[in-house]
Amino acid sequence: MENLSNLDYASYLKGWIRTVPNWPHDGVMFRDITPLLQNPKTFRMLIDVFVHRYMGENIDMVAGLDARGFIIGSVLAYELNVGFIPIRKKGKLPYTTVEEEYELEYGNATVEMHTDACKPGERVVLVDDLIATGGTMMAGYKLLQRMGAEVVETAAIIELPELGGGQLMRDAQVPLFTVCTFDGL
Amino acid sequence: MENLSNLDYASYLKGWIRTVPNWPHDGVMFRDITPLLQNPKTFRMLIDVFVHRYMGENIDMVAGLDARGFIIGSVLAYELNVGFIPIRKKGKLPYTTVEEEYELEYGNATVEMHTDACKPGERVVLVDDLIATGGTMMAGYKLLQRMGAEVVETAAIIELPELGGGQLMRDAQVPLFTVCTFDGL
Repeated sequence: MENLSNLDYASYLKGWIRTVPNWPHDGVMFRDITPLLQNPKTFRMLIDVFVHRYMGENIDMVAGLDARGFIIGSVLAYELNVGFIPIRKKGKLPYTTVEEEYELEYGNATVEMHTDACKPGERVVLVDDLIATGGTMMAGYKLLQRMGAEVVETAAIIELPELGGGQLMRDAQVPLFTVCTFDGL
Repeated sequence: MENLSNLDYASYLKGWIRTVPNWPHDGVMFRDITPLLQNPKTFRMLIDVFVHRYMGENIDMVAGLDARGFIIGSVLAYELNVGFIPIRKKGKLPYTTVEEEYELEYGNATVEMHTDACKPGERVVLVDDLIATGGTMMAGYKLLQRMGAEVVETAAIIELPELGGGQLMRDAQVPLFTVCTFDGL
């Protein structure tokens, strides 16, 4: 058995993220979390990093960004005994929604949330897998704010500092937690 | 406090699913699970129905279908102390994949799974939110079978019997569990 008690969890978990070079196109080093999810121990350790961070913080709801944010966000919600809010790409939610557009490398994208997803004043954690340019996370943050939620923190597994999203969010006073960072694009 | 101990969980949970008429197009009664997810109690009860069903069944992995299948599947994996396999729409997974095409109302779609997602002989539960025509679930089932996994059961929250997917799967001897059914399309 490994002694995990004297471990730097962030470094250990980072070691389970696989880099796939030149995907989805040349020059990109894609950081693939599936090995982390597929291993029972690292999957549990990963989730527990988030659970240990937010338990006792009076969180009312966890929101997850479509689709990899659902994987972490839903378990976190369950473990905190709160509800889960899916924030989705436009056209996926059937009820009345609020939407927020954001810029991509080429063109724009839009995320949506149901108008009854949270109540004013509720303390929400917003979860995704990765912060790159920060566009999706910021759009999700704005949606929750518009509905009157208090976004206690935005959270992701990975930050890619060179893409500037983390800095953008810190500059905008948006609280952000990430487990690990990777250099490069 | 409600007495939940003498409750038919399936009926109770079904009561929290919202029907949105004529979405995404005329004539469709869309069954919206977001109220079930947003309510802390029903979210936990829903997940626990799956946890109670599969605990003790020597499950090795839980696979979830993109994207709503991730919401249930990832929590189930965590609670069973096993790994989680994302099965995704084509073009979302960066490593070597196996893929399976299936028919939609108009045209085809393809789902993919990483080739290292599971090992031959592993006992897997495959999860999605809904069985309509059964196309996505059957495609996911075939992927897991091709990788040598033993699919212990496929599982969803909702079955729409009139769309025939559940029957198709039963006819093909694919084990299927659903929490509740809705009449109509």
